[in-house]
Amino acid sequence: MSLISRTTRGVYTIVPTPFHPGGALDLDSLRRLVDFYEEAGVDGLTLLGQMGEAPKLTQAEALEIVATVVARTALPVVVGVSAPGFGSMRALTCEVMSLGAAGVMVGPPHTLRTDDQIVGYYTEVGEQLGTDVPIAAQDYPLTFSVVMSVPVLTRIAREVPSVVMLKHEDWPGLEKISALRMVEAAGEMPRLSILCGNGGLFLDFEMQRGADGAMTGYCFPELLVDVVRLAADGRTDEAHDLFDAHLPLIRYEQQPGTGLAVRKYIMMRRGLLRADTQRSPGRSLSPAERAEVDLLLLRLGRLDARAVSP
Amino acid sequence: MSLISRTTRGVYTIVPTPFHPGGALDLDSLRRLVDFYEEAGVDGLTLLGQMGEAPKLTQAEALEIVATVVARTALPVVVGVSAPGFGSMRALTCEVMSLGAAGVMVGPPHTLRTDDQIVGYYTEVGEQLGTDVPIAAQDYPLTFSVVMSVPVLTRIAREVPSVVMLKHEDWPGLEKISALRMVEAAGEMPRLSILCGNGGLFLDFEMQRGADGAMTGYCFPELLVDVVRLAADGRTDEAHDLFDAHLPLIRYEQQPGTGLAVRKYIMMRRGLLRADTQRSPGRSLSPAERAEVDLLLLRLGRLDARAVSP
Amino acid sequence: MSLISRTTRGVYTIVPTPFHPGGALDLDSLRRLVDFYEEAGVDGLTLLGQMGEAPKLTQAEALEIVATVVARTALPVVVGVSAPGFGSMRALTCEVMSLGAAGVMVGPPHTLRTDDQIVGYYTEVGEQLGTDVPIAAQDYPLTFSVVMSVPVLTRIAREVPSVVMLKHEDWPGLEKISALRMVEAAGEMPRLSILCGNGGLFLDFEMQRGADGAMTGYCFPELLVDVVRLAADGRTDEAHDLFDAHLPLIRYEQQPGTGLAVRKYIMMRRGLLRADTQRSPGRSLSPAERAEVDLLLLRLGRLDARAVSP
Amino acid sequence: MSLISRTTRGVYTIVPTPFHPGGALDLDSLRRLVDFYEEAGVDGLTLLGQMGEAPKLTQAEALEIVATVVARTALPVVVGVSAPGFGSMRALTCEVMSLGAAGVMVGPPHTLRTDDQIVGYYTEVGEQLGTDVPIAAQDYPLTFSVVMSVPVLTRIAREVPSVVMLKHEDWPGLEKISALRMVEAAGEMPRLSILCGNGGLFLDFEMQRGADGAMTGYCFPELLVDVVRLAADGRTDEAHDLFDAHLPLIRYEQQPGTGLAVRKYIMMRRGLLRADTQRSPGRSLSPAERAEVDLLLLRLGRLDARAVSP
Repeated sequence: MSLISRTTRGVYTIVPTPFHPGGALDLDSLRRLVDFYEEAGVDGLTLLGQMGEAPKLTQAEALEIVATVVARTALPVVVGVSAPGFGSMRALTCEVMSLGAAGVMVGPPHTLRTDDQIVGYYTEVGEQLGTDVPIAAQDYPLTFSVVMSVPVLTRIAREVPSVVMLKHEDWPGLEKISALRMVEAAGEMPRLSILCGNGGLFLDFEMQRGADGAMTGYCFPELLVDVVRLAADGRTDEAHDLFDAHLPLIRYEQQPGTGLAVRKYIMMRRGLLRADTQRSPGRSLSPAERAEVDLLLLRLGRLDARAVSP
Repeated sequence: MSLISRTTRGVYTIVPTPFHPGGALDLDSLRRLVDFYEEAGVDGLTLLGQMGEAPKLTQAEALEIVATVVARTALPVVVGVSAPGFGSMRALTCEVMSLGAAGVMVGPPHTLRTDDQIVGYYTEVGEQLGTDVPIAAQDYPLTFSVVMSVPVLTRIAREVPSVVMLKHEDWPGLEKISALRMVEAAGEMPRLSILCGNGGLFLDFEMQRGADGAMTGYCFPELLVDVVRLAADGRTDEAHDLFDAHLPLIRYEQQPGTGLAVRKYIMMRRGLLRADTQRSPGRSLSPAERAEVDLLLLRLGRLDARAVSP
Repeated sequence: MSLISRTTRGVYTIVPTPFHPGGALDLDSLRRLVDFYEEAGVDGLTLLGQMGEAPKLTQAEALEIVATVVARTALPVVVGVSAPGFGSMRALTCEVMSLGAAGVMVGPPHTLRTDDQIVGYYTEVGEQLGTDVPIAAQDYPLTFSVVMSVPVLTRIAREVPSVVMLKHEDWPGLEKISALRMVEAAGEMPRLSILCGNGGLFLDFEMQRGADGAMTGYCFPELLVDVVRLAADGRTDEAHDLFDAHLPLIRYEQQPGTGLAVRKYIMMRRGLLRADTQRSPGRSLSPAERAEVDLLLLRLGRLDARAVSP
Repeated sequence: MSLISRTTRGVYTIVPTPFHPGGALDLDSLRRLVDFYEEAGVDGLTLLGQMGEAPKLTQAEALEIVATVVARTALPVVVGVSAPGFGSMRALTCEVMSLGAAGVMVGPPHTLRTDDQIVGYYTEVGEQLGTDVPIAAQDYPLTFSVVMSVPVLTRIAREVPSVVMLKHEDWPGLEKISALRMVEAAGEMPRLSILCGNGGLFLDFEMQRGADGAMTGYCFPELLVDVVRLAADGRTDEAHDLFDAHLPLIRYEQQPGTGLAVRKYIMMRRGLLRADTQRSPGRSLSPAERAEVDLLLLRLGRLDARAVSP
């Protein structure tokens, strides 16, 4: 199976983990999801991120999910392997790479502060996981409390050859994309594939700034695919029009702690998930939230027919 | 001058502090701003918040700003007095109340953690400032790193009579508004006026949840006024339509650290500020950002004629 | 095997994980350590805490360590099972309890802030691990960034029956012990066993305040055993004299990030560990640090003959 | 009056702010304290640090304190001017320098994270305060949540000429002193005066590592003076003996939030302060704490006659 690289482009959708109402893994829904993503035209999948409720799974379950997805699709699959220590990170990485993953994603532990600490951490990750495993570094200060400056990312790109991708979700982050592309253009760092997260909230402009695509879990991956393709084709007005139509929902979905409940609810409404269950700790939408999401879908449906319930 | 109270409603706009290009206070622009806000129909003004660059001012300048604004308008004026200790907080409060402020706003120091610490802090604030000074408590975890739960806010509302208003910018925060209104309805806490911040990003739904209005600095206060009034009149569809037209810009403006530069740039473009200067540490928009904002204004102008440059 | 309970007393020593210079587990040294602790008179052992480098182990290694220790001694063994999610926490708990552990230790995730969040977390831990697994809650704000107030601990003690022990390492913490004992005396919470950490830095006074003993890894467990017994016998002057003799070293060992290197170095010097190796990320003492520790041992040896190298 | 410089050595004691029981400034006690410090042989004084309860003072009170001390003694006086913004920092600095201060001390705002942010902040401080005002940079991660690595301090020393002193209270910090001295010896940064804080907890070894002295507020400044002089004279055994005798109390005093109450209590016992009052928020010792401190003094008195109450 192909690996992620410095030139990877497109949409890697973050896959939620489907559960039965009682909490057991729902692999049927998972397969249905995978088929749906393929039809939606995504370029890859990301499993076992925070949105995938990875910490709530046993290691056996985590591997079962990866095996199920890899067996179902030829799309490249990135797997989140962040862990408090290298013992389990290395073990999990070995397993998923041998199952056929295209790379792994690693976020920094929340205790890192100085530039040297952060660069040192990714250097260690690179050594521990081995030079043949491509890594996506996750730059998400809001969640990890770790601020990765442009000089830090430059150093990581230069010093850790296996870090080939940046999952970009700094906030604000537009200037950062431009700055990284300028450092690359000056020949001072090797190219990184930059896929943007943050729920897609700034995807319209991120593509203009030089991002390669999106890696996020918005409940309409079709929108992400369209915006990335329209932007790639230079059809920016159309990209903005479509993006703006979805923005009220994107904005709603991006609320921390609420977003996953919104996604699972909508994916249940779209017939993809049997249930919107989260394992504990987790929650489902309140009646008021459900009404708000329903209203947002209704309003979206006027502008994008795909938002109308089947 | 009237004081803020538990039943205050409407839009309190956060006023940026205008500077000349060299960094001196620009009181002419400040007066022009005040006139503009009055015409836009806001219900009050908030001075010396973080968006007002308060920490960059000397105490003398801070008082000059309050005096200038109070002399210019009969609108109620809330003044931010957050400080690392009670010495300067009490001194500043005395001064601004005697100048005619309608109340003060206080955010929690970032070191507070437990419920008792937070309640204890606001109890102390109430005692230090005196029972006749109405206080708006600022609930903004993203900036202050202090999480104020519904039980904590309930206790503050019950135990500190002078806290009459909540500047609500928890995120996510919709359920919190509903929860507070339910606790009030159950007779377990006195009513708080709830004005919402967060750049207005959720104002459409916050009004439905029971908020009394907005306290934020979006560069088109007319939009905030319209949404609050349409919501109050039950014209929610119109409120959503107008809100959604502004959402791409609201979203852009809400980027931390960038927002103020966007606001000052647009207010300069609108002829309200002579310059978009921030005192150091501060920044102005990059050329790329300026182009993005210009595009957002152009697109907004198609839907809301007020966004077209004069 | 006996389980920890609300009346557990004495010294539970934190066991470091011995590695060969190349990084492989050194089970011979581990068995030697266990024998040494028994001879030193400790009342129990704690495995797989942060000082045990738990995150650097694979799950298989972690279980091998527990099995080795349990096979070697009849002392009760508490096992650290903190994890970012309940999936692996529950799995590890099942395994170690079936191997014969006396209970598990759980620290809070660093994201918890409000009283309700912390109580809710331990409630969930209690439910996930099952009512028959006794839990030691770890109160260590310096490391976990979670502040557990007396009201919070009171609620946990009341609402989560399986939390029977507090690993107390708040700082400062003396008043907290007194406060908890007063709440117990007032009949408002069930008794907790309180074992103190923080490297033993306040053990002299903690015993006077009502602690039941120590749970820490000071490199001379004999000192911990003596201080706890002398305090229990009311021989406080002797306790202070002995404690003060060790304080320069205790103080030195308590430096975050350095402490484990000191412990492993001294235990190697004492002939207990074959090597002072830490797995990466880790470090050994610099030459300057080694000279400082040697000086401290030399000076200590004048007052406590056991500190003289064999 | 002389200014602090890159070669400043000795003991700068942190002066607490004396209050009458009702909370008013007690300038008589302040003068008595200053006389006492002079007799104790300190080399300088530090005012308006966190231990000086600076945030609880109005600006007028702060200046009154500086004026009172400067009028009483010829010792150099460093004044803490940390503030949330440059407006008040610059104003306060102007005032205290014109009153005759020897320099100012500035800690970093808690929001700084990356290397560039920290260096940028001190660069800005240097520009705002002017090149003729010598600055002590405060490196105290435990309180400020800002981690200043050796490369960061090297850059500050190189790029900000007016930063001449490091108030060193990183923890652990011994290796850091050695590392900084090595960078200096390699000619890669100008010399910094390094005065150590942390309540003196590691002063015995800090002097060996190359520190120039202490800047802290331990209640027996005589001990700090002795240890620094003995170390300077190469009489390290005597230094350790004396230091170890005080360590139980130093350790007790270093508890965050408790330390100031211990200091004020002991200084009241020593006849230096009329009252141990702290302004709110603050606290005095509980009866149990007072008994513990009394015991520590009693035990210390056996080894150092100066600890016996007058």
